[in-house]
Amino acid sequence: MIKRNDKILFAAAGALVVLTAVLQLLHANDVLRFVAAAIALSVLAMTVSTGTEQVGSHLSSGATGVLQAALGNLPEVLVCAFSLRAGLVNVVQAALIGSILANSLLVLGVAIVVGGVKHGRMHFDAQPPRLIVSMMMLAVAALTIPTLAAELHTPASTHEESLSAACAVLLLIVFLASLPFSLSADPERSPRHAPPSPVDRWPIWLAIAVLVVASLGAALVSEWFVSALEPAIETLHLSQAFAGIVIVAIAGNAVENVAGIRLAAKNRPNYAMSVILNSSLLIALVVSPVLVLLSFVLGGPVFTLVMPPLLIAALLLTTITSAIIVTDGETIWIEGVALIGLYGMIATAFWWG
Amino acid sequence: MIKRNDKILFAAAGALVVLTAVLQLLHANDVLRFVAAAIALSVLAMTVSTGTEQVGSHLSSGATGVLQAALGNLPEVLVCAFSLRAGLVNVVQAALIGSILANSLLVLGVAIVVGGVKHGRMHFDAQPPRLIVSMMMLAVAALTIPTLAAELHTPASTHEESLSAACAVLLLIVFLASLPFSLSADPERSPRHAPPSPVDRWPIWLAIAVLVVASLGAALVSEWFVSALEPAIETLHLSQAFAGIVIVAIAGNAVENVAGIRLAAKNRPNYAMSVILNSSLLIALVVSPVLVLLSFVLGGPVFTLVMPPLLIAALLLTTITSAIIVTDGETIWIEGVALIGLYGMIATAFWWG
Amino acid sequence: MIKRNDKILFAAAGALVVLTAVLQLLHANDVLRFVAAAIALSVLAMTVSTGTEQVGSHLSSGATGVLQAALGNLPEVLVCAFSLRAGLVNVVQAALIGSILANSLLVLGVAIVVGGVKHGRMHFDAQPPRLIVSMMMLAVAALTIPTLAAELHTPASTHEESLSAACAVLLLIVFLASLPFSLSADPERSPRHAPPSPVDRWPIWLAIAVLVVASLGAALVSEWFVSALEPAIETLHLSQAFAGIVIVAIAGNAVENVAGIRLAAKNRPNYAMSVILNSSLLIALVVSPVLVLLSFVLGGPVFTLVMPPLLIAALLLTTITSAIIVTDGETIWIEGVALIGLYGMIATAFWWG
Repeated sequence: MIKRNDKILFAAAGALVVLTAVLQLLHANDVLRFVAAAIALSVLAMTVSTGTEQVGSHLSSGATGVLQAALGNLPEVLVCAFSLRAGLVNVVQAALIGSILANSLLVLGVAIVVGGVKHGRMHFDAQPPRLIVSMMMLAVAALTIPTLAAELHTPASTHEESLSAACAVLLLIVFLASLPFSLSADPERSPRHAPPSPVDRWPIWLAIAVLVVASLGAALVSEWFVSALEPAIETLHLSQAFAGIVIVAIAGNAVENVAGIRLAAKNRPNYAMSVILNSSLLIALVVSPVLVLLSFVLGGPVFTLVMPPLLIAALLLTTITSAIIVTDGETIWIEGVALIGLYGMIATAFWWG
Repeated sequence: MIKRNDKILFAAAGALVVLTAVLQLLHANDVLRFVAAAIALSVLAMTVSTGTEQVGSHLSSGATGVLQAALGNLPEVLVCAFSLRAGLVNVVQAALIGSILANSLLVLGVAIVVGGVKHGRMHFDAQPPRLIVSMMMLAVAALTIPTLAAELHTPASTHEESLSAACAVLLLIVFLASLPFSLSADPERSPRHAPPSPVDRWPIWLAIAVLVVASLGAALVSEWFVSALEPAIETLHLSQAFAGIVIVAIAGNAVENVAGIRLAAKNRPNYAMSVILNSSLLIALVVSPVLVLLSFVLGGPVFTLVMPPLLIAALLLTTITSAIIVTDGETIWIEGVALIGLYGMIATAFWWG
Repeated sequence: MIKRNDKILFAAAGALVVLTAVLQLLHANDVLRFVAAAIALSVLAMTVSTGTEQVGSHLSSGATGVLQAALGNLPEVLVCAFSLRAGLVNVVQAALIGSILANSLLVLGVAIVVGGVKHGRMHFDAQPPRLIVSMMMLAVAALTIPTLAAELHTPASTHEESLSAACAVLLLIVFLASLPFSLSADPERSPRHAPPSPVDRWPIWLAIAVLVVASLGAALVSEWFVSALEPAIETLHLSQAFAGIVIVAIAGNAVENVAGIRLAAKNRPNYAMSVILNSSLLIALVVSPVLVLLSFVLGGPVFTLVMPPLLIAALLLTTITSAIIVTDGETIWIEGVALIGLYGMIATAFWWG
């Protein structure tokens, strides 16, 4: 009933949660606690993803899509929500934008290089990337407008929270409107995973149980991750921005990142592009507005879409550069090298604290 | 000789001009006067357009094109010129950029949604939109450079008027150079209306008379529109920028806007794209430089291309987003939703006064 | 053995070097000295280019490519290096960015107009321009990030030199990684010149001698060019930025510029696009980082990638506009007019000192 791989996954997730808990209780070295929590979180993210697929195999493909969209970024939302409650607004801002940068530059770049070196020029259907890039421009604009309004001291700058809330609501409306479209899309083009074959299907009670337990585990570990984050940053002498852009962004998206690169290596460029680009899009279009609206009820500081302007500039450069590279339906490995180089430059610019 | 529809149009135009005049003389409620003037202006714009077509049916198609380019934006130029003489520089800036935003986001978005919902994916010849988008980038640069020069306090910032005048002259030279090209274009691709069939042709004296009377009417009503604008803004507690971007921009372009959307609904996407995108282009490439040069002789403040930087940023985001959406020759309704969402965000950012 | 044309070239180069030297010794009029040095430099650039081809005819095509990439921009690097040593940082910044602007706007624009007027719409393989545009965005980002970090007073702004050095190293790594790709490319698509036919081949000693003598001559004349530059700017009442953007940029790239336009006139649009776009790319991707790293050993001020922000904005507008125009594989002459118009606007914005 349960495949061997899944049993190993569950065992690993359980062991890592226990390990992180023990380190937490022992007040172990900050960096060690942080690394353990980061790995536990990645494995829990994989478990949530498996559980979602299994629950989905009992539902219509439409309902599965909604479920996956809702739960796919759950660990990231949890980490950001706990960080917000801990007052780490700078880290959350950097982690959100950093996740997009890491995906659209580092992961896309590595996928293009790996695919290109193994299979030559990658050709793929340009239509889905174009749609994602269009939606991405909208989401980037939603971050740019409140930031510029604040930086330029326009009258709206004294209504930061209302403007951010309005932009967040508009983003979510556009996202909800796009759901029927994404759900009806050709599965090979779509980022949603193929449902498991009937033989591997778990009974619904087991699937739901796995999903609930893994989500609770992710919530617990997220809190430990955040509590270890700040001391670990200090021990390692990193700037908060660099930690958010590089460390949290890569740790928080490790699973999806590896998935996208493996698809490129297996010469499935349509699927690889969709997974990688959609991952960036969901953060910009869903995670960031959800955090804005959540922050009004969380009790910590209100999280607005007013970001450090250099982050926004990096995001704009990234979006335009990746748009130019993917909208022609063809990538060459050297384009991947250029994307990785751009990621390196942006990370360097945030190195100093 | 004169079709029934045209007679109704003339009657409506006459009645609305009289109504606006009466309200003006009675010092009626500001908002009422403003709304009446806005509707009268739209109907007069349709009359000018019909008159231009009729005069054009007596001329070569090249001369007609020139005439239409010159008179098509006459009502908008008149409103802006009167506003400038009244010292409402902020409103004019917002109305100009707002017209482009309303066209390239709201109208294009609605047209894509309507076309997409009625006919599925819209496919169209990508070449004309690409050319328009290239020219649009030039025109946007002409607004960006003087604004940035002023904001960054470069040496050119003390020569704002000369720099704006130089950019305006360069824009008009590029526009004039592009005329033979636009005029020789395939009529289905071109935004110019098909000439009326010979049966409906008016004698030349009538066509010229209609054109002259309607233009004079538009001039009169424009002045009333502007005189009602400021008190109406105050009564409605709107910011000048919001009024310009949303109210004046939509009212001033109502006719063209409806035309573009109707073409998309009728599944004529080539024509719809040309009408909508050209409408934005003509404002940026012709109306704004003409106003700059006019302002030197109008006696009011000199109108420069130094705009509020948030407007310019919104214009850049709009131009790049719509470029990504239209240059692939295919639109999906959800892209229209994204454009409308972006318009909503920009309008919100200017809501506060 | 040596063709007649080459003999004329050598004679002209020699005569011009002597003339420039004499004017220099006589302390002749600044503008005259400057013009003579500029012409001598152009002819020497052609000689270096011929010498490189001849040496290359004795080497593998890969080694030739590396040699051409290394020596192709030698005169430009020399002029900039001498200017840096003379403390003319503003001129070097303006000349570097100006070379890109002049190439991507003026030269590309003239080539599109000439090609379009002579042969109608130019069609070309869109893939190589797309790759170049992607790399260009990377290089532009490498200039944008340090400039924004400095302008926005982020923590990195106090580490300007380290950040610039890191970006320069990353650019050079990307360039070196791209070399095998560029070298293996289809020669018709590639900007590298076809090797001379065997009959015209010089013996290796002669080829190397010409290359060495011409390079030494270029070094000498570069120094005179720079020493005449500042007094000539003052005599002509030009701003340093305008001199860099227009005068030095056009003079320093005259040979390549003419080559690109002639290829368009001869209806070889693939080759023309590659020569023109690669010329911009090499300046951004190779010359500017080399100058940054050189400046650490030259003894003058350290040359960072922190540029005047208006220059960077002009560069971004230029890159995006030319990307939109060339990535569809088709150009119309009016697009060339738009590019030239944009160049005019940018040059005007730097006219005042």
